[in-house]
Amino acid sequence: MANYTHILVAVDFSGSASKVLAKAREIAERNNAKLSLLHIVEYLPPIDSAYEPILASNWSIDEEKLVEQANESLHKISAEHGLTDANLKVVLGTPKYEISQFVKTNQCDLVVLGSHGRHGISLLLGSTANAVLHDMPCDILAVKVNK
Amino acid sequence: MANYTHILVAVDFSGSASKVLAKAREIAERNNAKLSLLHIVEYLPPIDSAYEPILASNWSIDEEKLVEQANESLHKISAEHGLTDANLKVVLGTPKYEISQFVKTNQCDLVVLGSHGRHGISLLLGSTANAVLHDMPCDILAVKVNK
Repeated sequence: MANYTHILVAVDFSGSASKVLAKAREIAERNNAKLSLLHIVEYLPPIDSAYEPILASNWSIDEEKLVEQANESLHKISAEHGLTDANLKVVLGTPKYEISQFVKTNQCDLVVLGSHGRHGISLLLGSTANAVLHDMPCDILAVKVNK
Repeated sequence: MANYTHILVAVDFSGSASKVLAKAREIAERNNAKLSLLHIVEYLPPIDSAYEPILASNWSIDEEKLVEQANESLHKISAEHGLTDANLKVVLGTPKYEISQFVKTNQCDLVVLGSHGRHGISLLLGSTANAVLHDMPCDILAVKVNK
């Protein structure tokens, strides 16, 4: 039976990220698989009481800056785990959608994520468990982490 | 980092059971881990419109017979996969509860199940994703299977 060849880790920089990364690294080494680390910058514009985006002239967030900072954090955490060969990627969006898109585009065969946290499986699933699972074309490993 | 030592597979005899079992076997061999196969007989007594159990004198199901049949199926499928050393267990109950109980009692460190099917992660999670994940003290691997 084929081993895993391309493993995607959803990294959220929470306290549990190290545990998830260590587990993913172990599996990648054992399978001699390519490893990709993905962080999604969940940037939500403030909304008003009618749930419409506010377009206030005196308010602005530099999205590029957010992505740049996340990129630095991702490089740092991957270096700390000795993952010098890993493919690092930061995108702006929602974890549910971006993880699934990355898996499809890059033909990953395993997604490793924490059981909790902003990129954790419980958040990914939430009330749309079936939708996400149907949409994910590969295996999913939820690594147990403390809340 | 420690390998997995005791892997539990939730086996539901659906068309995807073979794929899940093959994956679990591969991981168990690679980790030199103990493998347990659990099937849960989901036996639900008929309910009346007020959602109370019906106790009809002319109606009966032999629960022991159900478990016995499932046991035969479990032995058959494990033999087909060459899992002669695996620990086989059939219980009567609900998958959510019984899988979690088995994991705790037997100190499993990985649960392998299908992404769909009666024992699949989508059913296990359903609308109570957080409750189940919080309750599961180990990693969970959802193997992608077709619906």
